[in-house]
Amino acid sequence: MTWSASIVTLFPEMFPGPLAHSLAGKALEAGTWRCETVALRDFGLGKHKAVDDTPSGGGPGMVLRTDVLAAAIDAASNPDDQRPRLLMTPRGKPLTQARVRELAAGPGAVIVCGRFEGVDERIVAARDLEEVCIGDIVLSGGEVAALSLLDACVRLLPGVMGAAQSGAQESFEHGLLEYPQYTRPQQFEDAEIPAVLTSGDHGAVERWRTERALQDTRKRRPDLLSREMAAESRRPIDKSGGSDV
Amino acid sequence: MTWSASIVTLFPEMFPGPLAHSLAGKALEAGTWRCETVALRDFGLGKHKAVDDTPSGGGPGMVLRTDVLAAAIDAASNPDDQRPRLLMTPRGKPLTQARVRELAAGPGAVIVCGRFEGVDERIVAARDLEEVCIGDIVLSGGEVAALSLLDACVRLLPGVMGAAQSGAQESFEHGLLEYPQYTRPQQFEDAEIPAVLTSGDHGAVERWRTERALQDTRKRRPDLLSREMAAESRRPIDKSGGSDV
Repeated sequence: MTWSASIVTLFPEMFPGPLAHSLAGKALEAGTWRCETVALRDFGLGKHKAVDDTPSGGGPGMVLRTDVLAAAIDAASNPDDQRPRLLMTPRGKPLTQARVRELAAGPGAVIVCGRFEGVDERIVAARDLEEVCIGDIVLSGGEVAALSLLDACVRLLPGVMGAAQSGAQESFEHGLLEYPQYTRPQQFEDAEIPAVLTSGDHGAVERWRTERALQDTRKRRPDLLSREMAAESRRPIDKSGGSDV
Repeated sequence: MTWSASIVTLFPEMFPGPLAHSLAGKALEAGTWRCETVALRDFGLGKHKAVDDTPSGGGPGMVLRTDVLAAAIDAASNPDDQRPRLLMTPRGKPLTQARVRELAAGPGAVIVCGRFEGVDERIVAARDLEEVCIGDIVLSGGEVAALSLLDACVRLLPGVMGAAQSGAQESFEHGLLEYPQYTRPQQFEDAEIPAVLTSGDHGAVERWRTERALQDTRKRRPDLLSREMAAESRRPIDKSGGSDV
């Protein structure tokens, strides 16, 4: 089945944008995924097609109206639609690679892009939106965040990544950053490839990589390790002895 | 001075991409910022213009060569260039709004986009790269992450955001998420705007917003609060009584 994205946005011309190139672009052409936009402006009110209004209680900027958003979301997604509905907002839960894997394994996503000072809060409950953010930075709107989310999902769709294995040994799997990589030339300026990597001793390479992944994660992202340990301790003990991955 | 971004990438056609529209696009046209790309392929080796090679020590995928990256970075940035050089990689430090503010206040940035299995680690030290990521998800390359970083910086440049005040009361400032927003209509389906926001009592509005920002941050992002408290405790006491913002 084709993985299908519907994006509710004031800027439909931003899609597929950068995702028309590279692997995602090839997969789009091949029909592995579909990218549809719903222009918020089409649901604007009055002769100026207004989509926003001033914040209740005062303050700078403009807020996207809940009635306009609801009409656009309803046009993007009928009641039978099984796809999760995401709202890109800095108030949301940070996306994780685990959530990306779930989304990529499903039928697709309806993605609502906030703009200006944000959206009227009532739309979240009224249309059952999952509030997510990509990181702790504030963007001018949800569009570029939506492109990141789509890129992350599309590369995991069957057939998109060249080497199927590529996905399993990368950052954020098992709470670790990926180990550092090296390739030819053997010497660059005054730096050489670590000798173990060219030793031909596969066991030693494996141990070195595991150690470096742990070491770099401890130094750079101790939060990933403690999150993984907390998840481990909540996990029921698997008596079959099988893997839980 | 014009804020200047130089992007080292295999996909120069992805820039400015979505940033040609909306506020960032207007600012680009107005000359508030500049977006230059350096095509990695132009520095590829041999008749196939090879930019990558297989990972030392084995494993799936391909790794960007350090010599090719170095040549492209040197073309993007001469030795007098005062701009920080960033590498977009999932192994990097998560970008924060505080770092975005610093970058926006500077002369610009040289942004190196990783692809495939990553870059040869030696480039980081050889060209003094700051490794950053936008969030805990894996993209097909650094390009969409670079677009996010640029969007976040450009909106903070002088004159780009309509309401100058807009930047000060938003998510991630002072370790808090922004309070929820509402706008007309007063009633939508069965939901009303919270009465306090239309009471006209500015003090009560202020208190409600502060309480909701705290409450939502505690519930959704306790990590932001504890990070802020740690930063507070490290901060020297300011005897002048002035603000340290």
